Order: sequence, then C-alpha cells, then structure tokens
Amino acid sequence: MILAVDIGGSSTKMGLVEDGRVISRARISTTGHADEHVFVDAIAGTARLMTDGSGAGLDSIGIGAPNANQLSGVIEMAPNLPWKHDVPLAKMVSERLGAPATLGNDANAAALGELRYGAGRGYQDLLVVTLGTGVGSGLIVNGHLVLGSAGNAGELGHTTLVMDGRRCTCGRAGCLEAYVSIRGIRETYADLGGDADVLRTEGVKAIADAARGGEKAARFAFQWTADWLAVALANAVAMTGPGRVVLFGGITRSGDLLMEPLLARFDKVLLNIHKGRVDVVLSALEEDDAALLGAAALTTFRS
Amino acid sequence: MILAVDIGGSSTKMGLVEDGRVISRARISTTGHADEHVFVDAIAGTARLMTDGSGAGLDSIGIGAPNANQLSGVIEMAPNLPWKHDVPLAKMVSERLGAPATLGNDANAAALGELRYGAGRGYQDLLVVTLGTGVGSGLIVNGHLVLGSAGNAGELGHTTLVMDGRRCTCGRAGCLEAYVSIRGIRETYADLGGDADVLRTEGVKAIADAARGGEKAARFAFQWTADWLAVALANAVAMTGPGRVVLFGGITRSGDLLMEPLLARFDKVLLNIHKGRVDVVLSALEEDDAALLGAAALTTFRS
Repeated sequence: MILAVDIGGSSTKMGLVEDGRVISRARISTTGHADEHVFVDAIAGTARLMTDGSGAGLDSIGIGAPNANQLSGVIEMAPNLPWKHDVPLAKMVSERLGAPATLGNDANAAALGELRYGAGRGYQDLLVVTLGTGVGSGLIVNGHLVLGSAGNAGELGHTTLVMDGRRCTCGRAGCLEAYVSIRGIRETYADLGGDADVLRTEGVKAIADAARGGEKAARFAFQWTADWLAVALANAVAMTGPGRVVLFGGITRSGDLLMEPLLARFDKVLLNIHKGRVDVVLSALEEDDAALLGAAALTTFRS
Repeated sequence: MILAVDIGGSSTKMGLVEDGRVISRARISTTGHADEHVFVDAIAGTARLMTDGSGAGLDSIGIGAPNANQLSGVIEMAPNLPWKHDVPLAKMVSERLGAPATLGNDANAAALGELRYGAGRGYQDLLVVTLGTGVGSGLIVNGHLVLGSAGNAGELGHTTLVMDGRRCTCGRAGCLEAYVSIRGIRETYADLGGDADVLRTEGVKAIADAARGGEKAARFAFQWTADWLAVALANAVAMTGPGRVVLFGGITRSGDLLMEPLLARFDKVLLNIHKGRVDVVLSALEEDDAALLGAAALTTFRS
C-alpha cells in the first residue's frame, strides 16, 4: 500500500493507493501551520488515522509538491508554499511514518500519472503542463522522466515569456506563470477593465462564467491567456519534441474557453516541422485521483 | 574509416575520421549546384578523391546538416539551405558511395562531438548551442541525445523570444535565430545606426572589430545579443536542467565581446534553483574538427 501526498498551495490531498487505485482519501490545509514540522505532524497524524491509527501496512510514501527536488528530497525555495527556505520533506515524513518516502515535483508526478494511467499512455515523449496556482511541467523523453543534472528540470512556468514583463513570485520578470496561472488570468482580467465584483471571488471560475455570459473583458482574458500559453507550449515542443502535450490542473476546468483559442493559436505558432506531429489535449484522469496516482507513481520511478 | 560531412549554409566540410581523429579534409560549396542530386554527386566525387579514387575503405558515413531529421534521414524544409523541399540525403549519399549513412541535425552532431571529445565530457545532461548562420541546439539528457518523437527536437533557434518580433527565415516572427544569428546581429547593428561600411562586409567580424575599437553601436549590438541569448539559455535550462551549456559556431569567435555580457546577464536571469548548478562555456574543440567529429559520432549513436 502506498501513501500518496499531493501538496498544493492551499490544501494538501492524501490518499491510500493499492493496485493503481485510490482506495481512501483525506485532505489537510497546507497553510496555517506554525512551521514545516507542525505540517509534517499533520500529515503523519492523518496517515495514521487513514491506516487504522497505526500507520502500519504502508510500503512506501510518494509526495508531490511544487519546487520539490526529486534528487535531493528537498522542497527548494517554493514561492507558492508557506516555507521560503529549503525543507527536506522526504526525510521528515519518512522518519515520522517509518516507511521510505520519495518526494517529487508535483508536475513530474502529474506527468508520470498521465504516462501510466492517463492521456499519455503509449507515448515515449510527452509533456505534461500543470495550470493552477503555479505553472509547472513534467517532461518524458524516450520513456523516462527528465530530472536534469540537479533534479530541477521542467520549470516551464519560469521560462521568460515577456522580457521585462510582469513581476513573478520567483522574483524575476515576465515568467509564463505570471500570465497563465490563476493569479495571471486574474491580473489580465483586471488589466482589461474586468468587473470588480467578479474579482472579489477567488480563482478564475467567476471570470469563466462572465466569459460564457459574453462579457468582453472576460472573453479577452481567456483569449490572451491562450495566446501566451500557445507560444510557451510551441517553444517547449521546439526544444523537446513530444508527441503529445497534456494539460492538467484547475485552470483546465475552463474547458473550451481556454482550449478553442489555444488550439487555434498553437497551430499558428508551431514550427512547420512539428505541425501534425504533436497534439494538445486535456488530462483524461479524474482530477483528484490524477495527482494522487502521480504521487504514488513517484515511489517506483527511476529516471 | 568514417566519412564525416558537415553541411553549412554556404560551404560543406568533409573529413575522413579514424580512431577519433580527422586524418584528411576537403571542402565544397553548398550553394551553386543545379539541384540536390548535383550536390550529392559533388560529395561523392570528393569522397572518392579523398579515398584514392575508389571510395573503398569507408565503413560508414555521418552527415550533419541544418534541419536534418535523424529518425527519417531527411533534410526537412531547411530555410538556410538551397533546397526548400524535403531531401532524403542519407539514402542518396549512401547509394552513391555504397556505405551506410546516418544523417543528423548539425547541432545534434555538435552536441555529440562535445560530449565525446570536448567541453561536455563527463556530463550526463548537456546543452550545446550552435551560433552561426542559424541557431541550433543539441540536448543530452541522462547521457542520451534527445531526438523527440518525430526526430526534430532541439530547435532552440526557433523558440519565440519576442512575441510579434522580427521576421525569421522560418516564416514566423520573433524567433531567437532572428536576433542572435549572424543575420540577427547585423540587423541589430543596423538598427542601432551602425556604420554602413562595416555592414558592407559579410559576417560579424567587422562589427566585432568596431566594438573592440570602442564604437558604441557595435558594443551595444553585442550587449543586446548577449541579453537575448542569456534569456533563451536560461529558458532552456529551466526546462531541461543541463549541468553545462556549451556554445559553438562562428559567432563564438567574438569571444569576450559576447561572453562577458552573456555570463553577467545569464547569472541575473537564471531561476534561483538553477544558480550555481550550470555554467556556460565556449567549445573546447578545434573549430573545424568539432563539426566533423560530431558528424562522425552520429554514425554510432543510438538515442
């Protein structure tokens, strides 16, 4: 039995995975803990509750998190998590629960989940892009996850899209994430003179609703977001040549509002030699399970 | 004995390679032939002259060329070569000379050359960028060359650097190649009000000389080129996480004029988690031999 943990900017999902299925689920808050030790206590306590109070029966633990370095087991200076310093989370959780733990980038976990169970099945070269609080990516080349020399490859969200552009949480300017994350879309909508009432709600659902209702600022916000994302995806394809790009994460719930302009623009900006050789699709996995299955897949993965 | 062929925009270098050394060299023009068949005749004729008139003794042929697809053996719509259609060069040369031929992207050949003989020795994750008439790149991940699902990965030169930017030979706008190739640097220099006499000479050597003499437009042209290249390299590093980036090709002859501002800017634009984990260096190989050794290395390479 594998304990799968998916750490997000606001909440952390947990699940027990057996034979490639999620058999039980829990959720704790990522924020609001005094420090990372208290947070790990909460993970361990919840895991014990999920396993009849003992924590026994756990073979291994897979943890997906933003800015996680799979080679070192450390979460490194994550701009979207409460801890701005390096946190050796794999070791901390493993010690609390007495089972080996593998920490991996949440986007790498998603890529492994899609490769094994989802829209990436059968592909040797695959790019999975997560669109949510942050923007991440996991890259499969020749059937293997690309970790990079220091374990931190796949940072599509922090490639520069616009030189001297918008400030990003990473401290730099013009990153893709500053444009196509939840915050990015909200900023675009605000820049376009969007409705203040819509912006009072969190996330991008209200903007999507406004767009479906025909509001111009909201429609343009999705159009612009799609244009930016299309260029970034075409760039990643030019470098790495995947046969498929899978989009994953909260923003993809916007569906055709994002996908229609995205596919049109992607086809336009793609280099000639890649046309017809790569497609862009939405994740085919149940949203909650995908991240957990990906985290579970981390435990057995070798690059 | 391996026949190594390096096809460039203006000239094609040929060499006989034995035990990792280039033992004889020749050069023919890439342009000015009636069609690709006449060009291949010229390659075959020269190869026969290099091998005592017979072509005997050739074990294999390695050919590096822009826009070459290693999976198919075809040069695909190369904007910087005389043939705008697809040319199955591997098959054509192999039939003429009676030895198996492997065609590979010139930048992939350069990457293999650096990995085996040059500044990339000992690296498992390496990015080699060629700066000349065009801008190409070869990517090594986990010790293997990345070809991509359709054999055309590594097109760093055709990632979009500036949305709706300069026209590129590929028909799109804002590609890195439109800014940091020979043509790109010349255009930047012209935009900066550079000297018409300097621009009457080919290449970038005269601009480099003017910069060394203190001419402001020329100095700015290199500074801007370095700034653009730094952002593109940082983006490629963010996605693929190499331990080293090796620069290769004619433009690198500009030396510190390019490298000093490049390294300063690269350090600034690199994502925090990559700082100190990747360096950018110039090729350590003899310029003429590097491309030929890379082409030769193609013959034995499997991804």
